[in-house]
Amino acid sequence: MDSDEYKQKIREKKVINDTWTKGKLVQLAGAFYDQFVSGVVPHVLMPSRTKRNLEYSDTSEVWVYGDIESERSAKTVKGAHQLLKTVYVSDFVVSEHLKNNRGSTLRELYYISEGWGPAKFGAQTESDRLIEDLEIITGAQREFFHIRPEEDGATMYGPIQIREETKRGARDIHCQQDIGEGGYQIPFNVENIEFVKHDASMIIAVETGGMYARLIENGFDEKYNAILVHLKGQPARSTRRIIRRMNTELNIPVAVFTDGDPWSYRIFSSIAYGAIKSAHLSEFMATPDAKFLGVQPSDIVEYELATDKLTEQDIAALRSELTDPRFESKYWKEQINLQLEIGKKAEQQAFAGKGLDFVTDTYLPSRLKDMGIL
Amino acid sequence: MDSDEYKQKIREKKVINDTWTKGKLVQLAGAFYDQFVSGVVPHVLMPSRTKRNLEYSDTSEVWVYGDIESERSAKTVKGAHQLLKTVYVSDFVVSEHLKNNRGSTLRELYYISEGWGPAKFGAQTESDRLIEDLEIITGAQREFFHIRPEEDGATMYGPIQIREETKRGARDIHCQQDIGEGGYQIPFNVENIEFVKHDASMIIAVETGGMYARLIENGFDEKYNAILVHLKGQPARSTRRIIRRMNTELNIPVAVFTDGDPWSYRIFSSIAYGAIKSAHLSEFMATPDAKFLGVQPSDIVEYELATDKLTEQDIAALRSELTDPRFESKYWKEQINLQLEIGKKAEQQAFAGKGLDFVTDTYLPSRLKDMGIL
Repeated sequence: MDSDEYKQKIREKKVINDTWTKGKLVQLAGAFYDQFVSGVVPHVLMPSRTKRNLEYSDTSEVWVYGDIESERSAKTVKGAHQLLKTVYVSDFVVSEHLKNNRGSTLRELYYISEGWGPAKFGAQTESDRLIEDLEIITGAQREFFHIRPEEDGATMYGPIQIREETKRGARDIHCQQDIGEGGYQIPFNVENIEFVKHDASMIIAVETGGMYARLIENGFDEKYNAILVHLKGQPARSTRRIIRRMNTELNIPVAVFTDGDPWSYRIFSSIAYGAIKSAHLSEFMATPDAKFLGVQPSDIVEYELATDKLTEQDIAALRSELTDPRFESKYWKEQINLQLEIGKKAEQQAFAGKGLDFVTDTYLPSRLKDMGIL
Repeated sequence: MDSDEYKQKIREKKVINDTWTKGKLVQLAGAFYDQFVSGVVPHVLMPSRTKRNLEYSDTSEVWVYGDIESERSAKTVKGAHQLLKTVYVSDFVVSEHLKNNRGSTLRELYYISEGWGPAKFGAQTESDRLIEDLEIITGAQREFFHIRPEEDGATMYGPIQIREETKRGARDIHCQQDIGEGGYQIPFNVENIEFVKHDASMIIAVETGGMYARLIENGFDEKYNAILVHLKGQPARSTRRIIRRMNTELNIPVAVFTDGDPWSYRIFSSIAYGAIKSAHLSEFMATPDAKFLGVQPSDIVEYELATDKLTEQDIAALRSELTDPRFESKYWKEQINLQLEIGKKAEQQAFAGKGLDFVTDTYLPSRLKDMGIL
């Protein structure tokens, strides 16, 4: 685990480059080599990725893995295969991706292993999981291995000028003046982005494309100097990472605007606190400062929004959130209990029932004042 | 049905503007008025939207609705409600959208009807369907009503410079030089786009994000002057429309590159021939010139690609395609029968098993030569 070194670099704003990543992977290979030489069965220790091993970090204010460790070892045939695959992937990343400045998708990586004989993956879930292991072991992020997700595609729109370092050269893009109405397409690796200048006093992360388009059409980004980020449902890593970077590097407050149902509260919590599956990345991707804007269950009552009845799944999800440490605050307990009581949920686009301007003229300014952002 | 007038305008490259659209909607209201005045029960005739009423148009080379008509009439209470809703929606589009240069999503439209008393929609399926009816009746497209879809988000990348007329002014964007690695985000209404100049000799429409990123990384767009369009699975209307516009207005040939399975062949056919559900739009959205590039079942055999077994659903879908008029060619019969015989399917990213450059150095050039595009 080298995340301390990584965090130090981030603090010093030093670039995490291919040389650094290569060093980490070669170091891992070196460790196996040393184990062989000293007659030790090759193995690697890493934090156990279970709910039991999740703990709250007071310093970084996110949920991270604790001290329980699990071992990958060549003691068993299965374990030996696992380490062989780890070495094959490391070699591929170093000698193809980092050396030639190339990349592959997670899916391609699975197919690439076709030619690896006994190190061939049986299914993509296996190679995906190994990449996560490699992230944990090296303290790097898969983006540094030049491993891409299959689909991406979140966009942003607002008063910020960025410089994206692409393979074809640097691109200077102002996210209002230089782009079409669709917005700026966030690339899969946002470490390639430098923030040139901005005039933003808030970031509004928006769940649905419909509301994102509404805020742009109504000029909310101009009137309130807001950077609008379209989450497209459960946000991709790149989306969470760029939100965190703008929040921590530029000190811009973040408000998350979703539908008013338990699944949307999880979208908020993945932005604010991270996800169990990727707790090793929380310190790079979560934004503990992020605040939940709405739709709150209390808004459903106050604004008499058009609603749907909670389904059984909704109710079960709300109950599970009541025992989830990430929702362990007076605010969330009140809101979730209220929602269980009224038995209803509402979408953010339900504000359209009050006219096309209600959400930007009335609801958002009022909520942002409550939250101390306006 | 005014699609002849519309097509004439397209031929003359006249702008379809808000005034034209308003005229169509006012004309519809006028027809109802005249029916009332003359003591006729208000009604409107439109083509029946059934498979039975689909026919191949030799002139436009796409499947369109035939002569069977169905009637919406106030003879029944249900029919009267339907016409009332039609009038409410028309009024909203004219007096809110067109007058103030605004727009709404299909979802918002449903919520907006909250305030319409007896014209309130019971569910969004109902308002979506009514918008389709209005498209058929007026011969316009829902984009002209300023009605947006919920999500969009396809992107393109290649040697073309476009001018997008946004609400904040015109934006001149070169789709290689002025954008990041994510590509140019196609807006929901591509009629707002003007093609300024281009240097393209082909359009490659790509199903998966992984392959789209691969072609960009490998510089395929530069080497072959190719505009790459990411379809993101079943393509949105805006994606199909911009492909058609580039094909017909700029005379650039189109090749569709998907996975090798029956669902992907349907993606191809929706680009080339249109969809049953929206046959009234085929003449604006389909690209009869589009050719299927692959993955072909014969490629699976020839290149020994990594495969999955056909599922029962796959087999049923292939059998259904054998009787689908859109696949009624010697080529498709051979390919589909071959696939049923080998019992396998392959993804486009399976080419990665042959190295990261195989698809761009070997497969695509060879296929494009076969197809007469290279």
